[in-house]
Amino acid sequence: MPKVLSGAGLRGQSAGETALCTVGKAAAGLTYRGYDIDVLADQASFEEIAYLLLYGNLPNRSELTAYEEKLMGLRALPEPLKAVLEQVPKDTHPMDVMRTGCSFLGNLEPENSMADQHQVADRLVATLPAMVLYWYRFSHDGVRIDTHNPHVPSLAGHFLTMLHDKAPNALHTQVMNASLILYAEHEFNASTFTARVCASTLSDMHSCITGGIGSLRGPLHGGANEAAMDMIEPWKSADEAEAALLQKLANKEKIMGFGHAIYSERDPRNEIIKKWAKKLSEEAGDDHLYAVSERCEAVMWREKKLFCNADFFHASAYRFMGIPTPLFTPIFVCSRVTGWAAHVMEQRANNRIIRPSADYTGPDHAEWIAIDNRK
Amino acid sequence: MPKVLSGAGLRGQSAGETALCTVGKAAAGLTYRGYDIDVLADQASFEEIAYLLLYGNLPNRSELTAYEEKLMGLRALPEPLKAVLEQVPKDTHPMDVMRTGCSFLGNLEPENSMADQHQVADRLVATLPAMVLYWYRFSHDGVRIDTHNPHVPSLAGHFLTMLHDKAPNALHTQVMNASLILYAEHEFNASTFTARVCASTLSDMHSCITGGIGSLRGPLHGGANEAAMDMIEPWKSADEAEAALLQKLANKEKIMGFGHAIYSERDPRNEIIKKWAKKLSEEAGDDHLYAVSERCEAVMWREKKLFCNADFFHASAYRFMGIPTPLFTPIFVCSRVTGWAAHVMEQRANNRIIRPSADYTGPDHAEWIAIDNRK
Repeated sequence: MPKVLSGAGLRGQSAGETALCTVGKAAAGLTYRGYDIDVLADQASFEEIAYLLLYGNLPNRSELTAYEEKLMGLRALPEPLKAVLEQVPKDTHPMDVMRTGCSFLGNLEPENSMADQHQVADRLVATLPAMVLYWYRFSHDGVRIDTHNPHVPSLAGHFLTMLHDKAPNALHTQVMNASLILYAEHEFNASTFTARVCASTLSDMHSCITGGIGSLRGPLHGGANEAAMDMIEPWKSADEAEAALLQKLANKEKIMGFGHAIYSERDPRNEIIKKWAKKLSEEAGDDHLYAVSERCEAVMWREKKLFCNADFFHASAYRFMGIPTPLFTPIFVCSRVTGWAAHVMEQRANNRIIRPSADYTGPDHAEWIAIDNRK
Repeated sequence: MPKVLSGAGLRGQSAGETALCTVGKAAAGLTYRGYDIDVLADQASFEEIAYLLLYGNLPNRSELTAYEEKLMGLRALPEPLKAVLEQVPKDTHPMDVMRTGCSFLGNLEPENSMADQHQVADRLVATLPAMVLYWYRFSHDGVRIDTHNPHVPSLAGHFLTMLHDKAPNALHTQVMNASLILYAEHEFNASTFTARVCASTLSDMHSCITGGIGSLRGPLHGGANEAAMDMIEPWKSADEAEAALLQKLANKEKIMGFGHAIYSERDPRNEIIKKWAKKLSEEAGDDHLYAVSERCEAVMWREKKLFCNADFFHASAYRFMGIPTPLFTPIFVCSRVTGWAAHVMEQRANNRIIRPSADYTGPDHAEWIAIDNRK
């Protein structure tokens, strides 16, 4: 096994300043610009949170209405972008589709100056859901969907409408809204840090967000809710889940959706999404999936003192809303783009290029050998 | 002015280990896997350097021949990628084209497992020149070029052949080869660090390289040779250059192509590319551009004690080879992809997710106000 340095991964080292978020204060807190996540997920719309992160304060009524209308007006995809999405094979990783779609939108609508940064960010918030679902519905169902939906004001409802071809019920819209709020921002995680390193070269917003998507794609970062779903999906009762989970623990398998690098006592997002998963379970007449999830939570705590993070109950919540597993991480993108873009703007406002050093472990000096004398 | 922290940008802080490169040892050195850059640029082919970085050692004669043949066999672009490149507008930033092309290739040919990492890296080395030039020639000249060139073994010659539609002379091939070697690797610079942060989530190679391209695009990182060219191009004599440059210094304008964040005494790449720029100047019968460049070097040293970095004489060298300015940074990509990919492999071999902390500067606690009570 290669050794892992204690300081590896910059753990615990400050890489800059932020006014956007605290993670793990008092071991379990999460705030966006000082507002507690519990209040935000309970009271706010995702559009309010996007405004809070991108513009610095909660909007008043007329500002929010104007912002919702602005985002709705930015939903349509340019024809060349649709043409590109139609070239993407059906079996492509949906995160790769979003990475490419974001990058290509930057070809068509470049950020010509930093004065455009809010416009570019809002355009990405408005179009990323459409990019992934236009491709998904075209490649899977052979239809070219309307990505405008002028009668569905919320991004949460817009996403579900494009996916299911019909307006979602109020509960589903409410849960999707809360989910988007929970995933919007999380300080200097790896994808956000990727976006900030890119921003520190004064590159454009599309490059920064494209980079963030590429990092979120990694199985150590986004995708834990997909892995959790893959694990629990085959289990048809709580008892079956407990037996199988104990077997996995005995095999020392990695269980996704539990524990956290920063939170030490609990993930404050868990109880919020768990509450919604329970409501969805009751609405759907589910006879086992929620019970399976709850039993996993109990077993992991009893056996390992590991708590559920934001991802675990997201798996069942998304399933109850009829969302296919490969679209779980793309929803994360549709939400986190607000945090990424806010971090890019913050980095730009007080920038120094992020250029660390490295510990050299190679040979001190290597002597050139002419090619015909090499072994 | 916002304050800049002394520790900002992680300057001087180690973010990991590398055996690939040393920068600035004894204030002026540059080595790739222990080999001095002077020897490499003088003796090696770019393909040898790619092999050294990606496979860990210099190839012997049969390994090099096999590697050259492999890269040649990987040059062709898939038809859907050509279709996407044809959708990109003519006035797009060429770095945005490469970012999109790299990402889209990942849609068509995903890295399904890390066992494929060398194959994916070699494919990118072989195709990135074709991606940018297929788009460039299609959008600017209306032609669909052949990106195969089976009679041009070197990547240096291949690039120039696709650009000019004819085989380059030996001097141009030799200089382009040296240029690609000089730009191949440079430790934990911002684009390489972007690729490593992305790799640390265990994301795929295309995401990592796409992120690297996005960061290199930033004007604080790649693009200094383009900025240098834009500056010197209007000057028709050394005396005119000196007067104009002194005026810029008096105006406190930023002069690109001089000084370096890590090197304190000299950039070892400068004397190599300067020598080639002089030869190209003589071959081209140039009556002022090289003289202008040399005068700038003398003035900047006399006035500011700033030395030329790798980028400054690259500007005139590329111009003498008939390369349009917007393609300067894309050449950097065609070279640096080898360093980026080698760093991705190194990060994967001894990985911990790169997740630093941040200093929080926002409000301690913000009280929720119902929307109709907000100002």
